[in-house]
Amino acid sequence: MIDLETLSRKFQKELNAGTTALALLALLARRGDPLYGYEIAKQLAAVDAELALGKQGALYPVLRALADEGLLESWVEPSVAGPPRRYYRITQDGRSALAEWTRLWRRTRQLVDEMIDERGREG
Amino acid sequence: MIDLETLSRKFQKELNAGTTALALLALLARRGDPLYGYEIAKQLAAVDAELALGKQGALYPVLRALADEGLLESWVEPSVAGPPRRYYRITQDGRSALAEWTRLWRRTRQLVDEMIDERGREG
Repeated sequence: MIDLETLSRKFQKELNAGTTALALLALLARRGDPLYGYEIAKQLAAVDAELALGKQGALYPVLRALADEGLLESWVEPSVAGPPRRYYRITQDGRSALAEWTRLWRRTRQLVDEMIDERGREG
Repeated sequence: MIDLETLSRKFQKELNAGTTALALLALLARRGDPLYGYEIAKQLAAVDAELALGKQGALYPVLRALADEGLLESWVEPSVAGPPRRYYRITQDGRSALAEWTRLWRRTRQLVDEMIDERGREG
């Protein structure tokens, strides 16, 4: 007997590795203005009700990595009501990466859909 | 200046982490009969001409992991013309995992498509 639930959690985590970065870049590109972590998590949760991608704790390492790579700017601002907030804004390099990664995502999506369904993407 | 090519290679590798396992399960489920590594690579390359998922060396660790998890059976047979061949066949548990992972994939695909394009999946 396999533990399908554990294996499926691992599978979902693997799927999220690339897709979360792509989703975050897309969100910050669409918004344009800087967002802080909690706002980003809320925006993602609005699309991703089951929180497949968006569990808040899982977002921060991805935001940090994107900032380290120069795809996001990040800085801390004091907040009137609470602890300081770390803001994120997409950079021009981040927009270039988003364009290229969107292309790679579409190609990969197409390939996977062809593999799981010989008819290709279903309508 | 960022190194977009290196970052994009990393992104593609992350996308492949889950999707290659899904593609291999789907291929072996569709075929039903056992396949050995080179045949699997050839079949994948037939769909994936750019070898985004299918670089042969990248397949073996994924096949091994799926066999370790009980989702594939694997055994070695002597070959008349060359070294022995390691065959892989999907198990009943592998078919269960494929059904569940296909569901998770579709949900994740939908979410990512909504994030990168507010109109949702484009036609």
